[in-house]
Amino acid sequence: MKQVYSGKTKDVYELENGHYLLKFKDDVTGEDGVFDPGANTVGLSIEGAGKAGLKVTQFFFEKFKEKNIPTHYVDANVDSREMTVVPATVFGEGLEVICRFRAVGSFLRRYGKYAEEGQQLDAFVEVTLKDDERGDPPISRDALDMLGILSQEEYEELKSLTKEISHTVKEELAKKGMELYDIKLEFGRDADHRIILIDEISGGNMRVYKDGEYIHPLELEKLLLDSSSVK
Amino acid sequence: MKQVYSGKTKDVYELENGHYLLKFKDDVTGEDGVFDPGANTVGLSIEGAGKAGLKVTQFFFEKFKEKNIPTHYVDANVDSREMTVVPATVFGEGLEVICRFRAVGSFLRRYGKYAEEGQQLDAFVEVTLKDDERGDPPISRDALDMLGILSQEEYEELKSLTKEISHTVKEELAKKGMELYDIKLEFGRDADHRIILIDEISGGNMRVYKDGEYIHPLELEKLLLDSSSVK
Repeated sequence: MKQVYSGKTKDVYELENGHYLLKFKDDVTGEDGVFDPGANTVGLSIEGAGKAGLKVTQFFFEKFKEKNIPTHYVDANVDSREMTVVPATVFGEGLEVICRFRAVGSFLRRYGKYAEEGQQLDAFVEVTLKDDERGDPPISRDALDMLGILSQEEYEELKSLTKEISHTVKEELAKKGMELYDIKLEFGRDADHRIILIDEISGGNMRVYKDGEYIHPLELEKLLLDSSSVK
Repeated sequence: MKQVYSGKTKDVYELENGHYLLKFKDDVTGEDGVFDPGANTVGLSIEGAGKAGLKVTQFFFEKFKEKNIPTHYVDANVDSREMTVVPATVFGEGLEVICRFRAVGSFLRRYGKYAEEGQQLDAFVEVTLKDDERGDPPISRDALDMLGILSQEEYEELKSLTKEISHTVKEELAKKGMELYDIKLEFGRDADHRIILIDEISGGNMRVYKDGEYIHPLELEKLLLDSSSVK
């Protein structure tokens, strides 16, 4: 088992059969000891954070599998904090795809002239470039196409997948009385050039509220899985 | 003749027949006495600036008329610095539509990871909101539609008109050995809800180069019209 990458919150190993193994760490991103899922630095290590993130990820990827939504997920072993995935190549040097159900965050900072804070949005999808240096700029379908990152057809497929995935997450959270405000996804192409969901799906990828209160990413696992896993 | 608006570079009067009269001023936008067409303050007054801007505007709007491109233009009187237009309502609180033939300016600041400075772009169109407070943010077709500013169909029409207009400007400049890098347009709806080009088309709306040298907006009139107007 060969280590091919050491990330901020995961190490990646190549397996003999061509799959990859993601080893979740207890390190979480943030700054000055404060957890911030959007940060680009490792801020602190929280006992059990890796396991909690993987449990939520496993939960959602199993739901996607039931719905035949294409993802890189093969299986997961929560105790050893390991997830097995198929390899995928990202678009360009990486995109983030955001789906919004409420007007908050950067959406409001940009379009506050036309939207009220917290206003409902109908699964609005937008794409940003992963580019720390340039502040992860939003990019249009036309620009993605012109710059050779994603064709117009691939964009539409990405958008449609994003809505289906986000609605699935929203519904699962709603069963536990929680509301999804927005979620950030990553996609790639598999060996057959099919678009698949990659990375993880956990508290750090989304903004969730319950009874008007913001749910801290690390508390999501408890609220989502504790009472449901009566097994 | 009733004055209805006093702008940074134009005063607007309502005429008896329902048309509007735009009176071009010699004031140009800028800061601390330095001319900057993108600025939001009047920086200085330049003798003849209003007349020069109107001459270029008249030149292009007459070209558009020949090509049956819908605009708000009725006619112009350069000596009195007056242009007559039909009324139009803007989209939302105003949009700017940019067409790019070279990767410079804010395009490069956003997408520099994927584009070289000065790289040729194939009449790439993007829309920004007029919102000084939020830095005139770019906005996608989907977001414009969702926020009720512009429907998907109107967006496509706007894009198509923008390309036609920009190509026309590019060709006219090319006849004088100049190259259009990018141009900023404004559109509105006329009384019949038709999308029409509004505002002016002069040096301040575009980046123009000649023999690799940037052409100052106030010099455009001379280079474009001096040798051509042998009449």
